[in-house]
Amino acid sequence: MTTEDTQTLNGLDVGQLQATVEALRDQPVLAQFEFRASNSWIDGGENHSTIQSFYGAGQEDTSREQPFVFATGEPPVLLGNNEGANPVEFLLHGLAGCVTTTTVLHATARGINIQSISTRLRGDIDLQGLLGLDDDVSPGYRSITIDMEIEADCSDEEIESLLETARGHSPVCTTVCRPVPVTINRVTTQRAVA
Amino acid sequence: MTTEDTQTLNGLDVGQLQATVEALRDQPVLAQFEFRASNSWIDGGENHSTIQSFYGAGQEDTSREQPFVFATGEPPVLLGNNEGANPVEFLLHGLAGCVTTTTVLHATARGINIQSISTRLRGDIDLQGLLGLDDDVSPGYRSITIDMEIEADCSDEEIESLLETARGHSPVCTTVCRPVPVTINRVTTQRAVA
Repeated sequence: MTTEDTQTLNGLDVGQLQATVEALRDQPVLAQFEFRASNSWIDGGENHSTIQSFYGAGQEDTSREQPFVFATGEPPVLLGNNEGANPVEFLLHGLAGCVTTTTVLHATARGINIQSISTRLRGDIDLQGLLGLDDDVSPGYRSITIDMEIEADCSDEEIESLLETARGHSPVCTTVCRPVPVTINRVTTQRAVA
Repeated sequence: MTTEDTQTLNGLDVGQLQATVEALRDQPVLAQFEFRASNSWIDGGENHSTIQSFYGAGQEDTSREQPFVFATGEPPVLLGNNEGANPVEFLLHGLAGCVTTTTVLHATARGINIQSISTRLRGDIDLQGLLGLDDDVSPGYRSITIDMEIEADCSDEEIESLLETARGHSPVCTTVCRPVPVTINRVTTQRAVA
């Protein structure tokens, strides 16, 4: 690569982005990723997740020297003490981040300079579902709305096209919009016989 | 309420749980919640979410004096600097927390004492979808597996029944398992004419 390849746009290294796209196009196996989280219950509505390693681009990632740790909690009206944001709020955070990053990624691939993006999300949920009070009520979000303000050096039509691409290619947005199978296995630790 | 109602199980106030269930059964409108997140793009794969208020139980919640703030980032292999966990990892965290809290909630309603719960999650994703390299590849998680270790003062059959309930009633698990509509609106701030 030449030094020209280190040019950045929207904070992304354009040469690295192009090289990544080419590598995955040539070797689709490199696009297979496994992300992970470990979680431990503390008490009541409080539990903590640890996120560090993942597999991707053909190998275990070792770039994170320390894990990320997040506390889940619940507000008093949901029997907690605000020990952290609650799980459905973390889902909104993941969705906001994913739609934003997907927009920035595709803008960069198209050579569009983004000035700013901000989003406000709201999700409607009927807690009769969680509590099993009405079998006709789905426990999940009924719908989620994302209001996005975006300023970029391009036409309105190019922005609309970019948002259409982000909507269709965001991994979290797609996971929410489409049915994804979740399997829960009960496992027991093998204990050595004394 | 008598003082007997302040008995706790699994860190939850049993009297408050029963009162909440009764209140929502009598007035389902109290079960309607709106959760929210606001997010701002920083640069590249970094953006920050702020989570504080929500609507539920018939009113705006004001219990959080300070907002929760979370940074999204990406690892170097995905063009970032590990500014935070990435969006699909946050989704796993939300899922872990939700399945755990739903398990604890229904255990408490059944009078089951939980000793410990820990989960390990892994989700498979093909990044050809995100990058738009293959239209046949969904950008979202292909599947998510949750391995749960749980110790509780009850029979294996009661634990299996509890996990079946958690699987069917967890809001994040249901949001992932079933299609949930996500709408992205582009909004523009009204600027006053000078």
